Amino acid sequence: MNSTTITAISTAPGIGGIAVIRVSGTDAIQHCNTVFLPKKKSFSLLQQDANTVSFGSIINRKGETVDEVLLTVFRNPHSFTGEDVVEIACHGSVFIQQQILQILIEQGCILAKPGEFTQRAFMNGKMDLSQAEAVADLIASTSAASHSMALNQMRGGFSSELMKLRTQLLNFVSLVELELDFNEEDVEFADRTQLKSLATTIQQLIAKLKDSFNVGNALKNGIPVALVGETNVGKSTLLNVLLNEEKAIVSDIHGTTRDVIEDLINIGGITFRFIDTAGIRDTKDKIESMGIERTYQKIEQAAIVLWILDCTQLSEHMEWLTERIEKRSLGKKVILVFNKIDKIEIEEREVLSQLFEPFEGDRIYISAKNRLNTDELEKALVKAAQLPEINPGDVVVSNVRHYEALQNAHTAICRVIDGLESGISGDFLSQDIRECMHFLGEITGQISNDEILGNIFGKFCIGK
Amino acid sequence: MNSTTITAISTAPGIGGIAVIRVSGTDAIQHCNTVFLPKKKSFSLLQQDANTVSFGSIINRKGETVDEVLLTVFRNPHSFTGEDVVEIACHGSVFIQQQILQILIEQGCILAKPGEFTQRAFMNGKMDLSQAEAVADLIASTSAASHSMALNQMRGGFSSELMKLRTQLLNFVSLVELELDFNEEDVEFADRTQLKSLATTIQQLIAKLKDSFNVGNALKNGIPVALVGETNVGKSTLLNVLLNEEKAIVSDIHGTTRDVIEDLINIGGITFRFIDTAGIRDTKDKIESMGIERTYQKIEQAAIVLWILDCTQLSEHMEWLTERIEKRSLGKKVILVFNKIDKIEIEEREVLSQLFEPFEGDRIYISAKNRLNTDELEKALVKAAQLPEINPGDVVVSNVRHYEALQNAHTAICRVIDGLESGISGDFLSQDIRECMHFLGEITGQISNDEILGNIFGKFCIGK
Repeated sequence: MNSTTITAISTAPGIGGIAVIRVSGTDAIQHCNTVFLPKKKSFSLLQQDANTVSFGSIINRKGETVDEVLLTVFRNPHSFTGEDVVEIACHGSVFIQQQILQILIEQGCILAKPGEFTQRAFMNGKMDLSQAEAVADLIASTSAASHSMALNQMRGGFSSELMKLRTQLLNFVSLVELELDFNEEDVEFADRTQLKSLATTIQQLIAKLKDSFNVGNALKNGIPVALVGETNVGKSTLLNVLLNEEKAIVSDIHGTTRDVIEDLINIGGITFRFIDTAGIRDTKDKIESMGIERTYQKIEQAAIVLWILDCTQLSEHMEWLTERIEKRSLGKKVILVFNKIDKIEIEEREVLSQLFEPFEGDRIYISAKNRLNTDELEKALVKAAQLPEINPGDVVVSNVRHYEALQNAHTAICRVIDGLESGISGDFLSQDIRECMHFLGEITGQISNDEILGNIFGKFCIGK
Repeated sequence: MNSTTITAISTAPGIGGIAVIRVSGTDAIQHCNTVFLPKKKSFSLLQQDANTVSFGSIINRKGETVDEVLLTVFRNPHSFTGEDVVEIACHGSVFIQQQILQILIEQGCILAKPGEFTQRAFMNGKMDLSQAEAVADLIASTSAASHSMALNQMRGGFSSELMKLRTQLLNFVSLVELELDFNEEDVEFADRTQLKSLATTIQQLIAKLKDSFNVGNALKNGIPVALVGETNVGKSTLLNVLLNEEKAIVSDIHGTTRDVIEDLINIGGITFRFIDTAGIRDTKDKIESMGIERTYQKIEQAAIVLWILDCTQLSEHMEWLTERIEKRSLGKKVILVFNKIDKIEIEEREVLSQLFEPFEGDRIYISAKNRLNTDELEKALVKAAQLPEINPGDVVVSNVRHYEALQNAHTAICRVIDGLESGISGDFLSQDIRECMHFLGEITGQISNDEILGNIFGKFCIGK
């Protein structure tokens, strides 16, 4: 256990009704007892039962009351960090929060670094590394999907699956390594057929987890949707309607949107990452040409392409355009959005639709300016997202670090399988199995170093 | 006791490590029990001891976990509101906070109005009205002084003083009114000499409280400091240095600062309200003339006048200027600030100083641009503020509503004294005493109505 006692404001910064200051470490209760004047006479925090609250005042060095507070005591190991923890609920004035923090620091507490409470929870075995990372994801979650994933991960489904694999590998590698001790006797404790069958099972499991990252990443960071089309067909206007705010600059001048603007929007519990792009057209403006080049790249990164068309004025270059968009949107959902529908007759729609036969996806007829049918478009987007629902207990990888470790573990386990097929020697086999175990262990934190931990917890907010 | 159960997020809005959602009312524990899945099996919140914490999950209607939380139970009357209260400490994601709030509302909780928890505390006799108002002041406090005042008021020093006065008046008025019952017998139960002595004591006490408002208001809202001087002497630059940010627009063009800019700054625990003003000069610009007119008004509102002078270039209109500033700063502290001191010799300072003999105050030599001696200026400001230190227990009125009630009470008690001197009849006397009692009761809330309460609690933040 760490010998220092740390403290930080754990609630959101700013003024609120109340704020909570957390103190954790060997001397947490002692330090708080010194600055706490309980309402109940002859009461001491040192004797306070775990998980109970008491009312009183925080006093400064001059004995002056700084605030009236509720103080909750948790005793190790039954606390978030696994250490003795005191949570001070004070009035939510920024001034008071700072004063109490200062008084605790005068007592010998140290200001907690970002994520240090969670890091201590990890160090004290209260959670593994992937669970600790899920705490940060949970706090940052903004949609039902990202929230579910983080919660599942925090509750340990992911870790327990990985640890199970790792234990199975450990059993086998032990037998393989035992063989090495009897090197000259040419024994085979580890049944190669069984090992190959296990390795294949593990390879499939890792592959499944690895593949779930596509979904996980989309849910966590938003499903990328490219808005493409010629200049002046109303892309920016549509984006504004979907975003419900004036983010993109709308103007009548062709080629206004030079920079790629991205924004997140929640539709039906799913986060979409909208990418507004420069209008595609033949242009001599060098900067605008660069913008159009980026449009093509963005199409390739997107999962869904919204192709916006002006009903009243189809492009002269339609063939040129269709070819370009079709080529770059292979395997993606393309939704054709006919804009300015208020300006044409209903019969004309069918004609329009037929012009775009190569595209199988939905055809939506809207007026972005008049907010006509834009809810139909939203429904089409949700349908196009086609993400599996995350159920409690589902394991979905959403963390890039985990994804990389899984890729490395996958490479190693494939080498194990190859090695078994080609009958390589036990020492090489053992090395590959150990490597696979290493990468699986990196995810759960069974294998870790200060740099990895620094990277992970440095991204937390202070107070967690 | 109110029959509805209210809920709100009590911590500051936004993302934090943790957030606290408060539930208060008859069904608080029942509602929370329905949505809480305790970690400990066969445990029910209904049986949970008061002032204890339990760990578990909040579940939605589908039985899915929304978050892992710590849940604290308080039982009436030993809670902030005096009702049953549950505080839910969840992960500080905005999404989670909203989800939990929604789940509670589905259970039948009602979203709390601003200040409704404190209003219930008042209604249930946990605090009087001036104490409730102090809760809001405490949360808004930004300096040591405003914090001390609010804390003293919350702890009830002010109220108990007023209630004591009110009880004494009540005793007397009862005797006076008893006389009225025996009207024809011309009795005198209430000793007029004693009553006059008491009324005088009360009048002096109310006057003292009323007078403390000058200090209280200055501490709460900042001591007004006017920055005056000719155009282009560096007033805006100095303000920027003191504010430590680029608030006022600084330029070399004479007459830039047309609008009066105000900003608060904490120096030595005291809040100063700096008023940057248009430069004083003879101008033909109509808008600028209006700005200069406001400067004169601001001098009259200020407690401290900082007169900024350019060492290198004293005005041609110095006599005209001196006269104007002197006239309007009678009874105020004037600090002469000689700016651009880096551009003159030290010997010249004495000469400069002598030019301004009519002004007794400090002379500070600075260079705002080079931040030279600006700390000396800060010290001079703190000295000029000359505010008495607020000690725990000191009663200082800082609330406009209280101030007005005290003024009305003062008028009434003066009428009582006059009446006693002129020997008016008991019924008039009784009416004046009752009026004084009424206004004192308005402060503590012994006398209140929905409108007053609505005004007071409407200014609170939600969740308090």
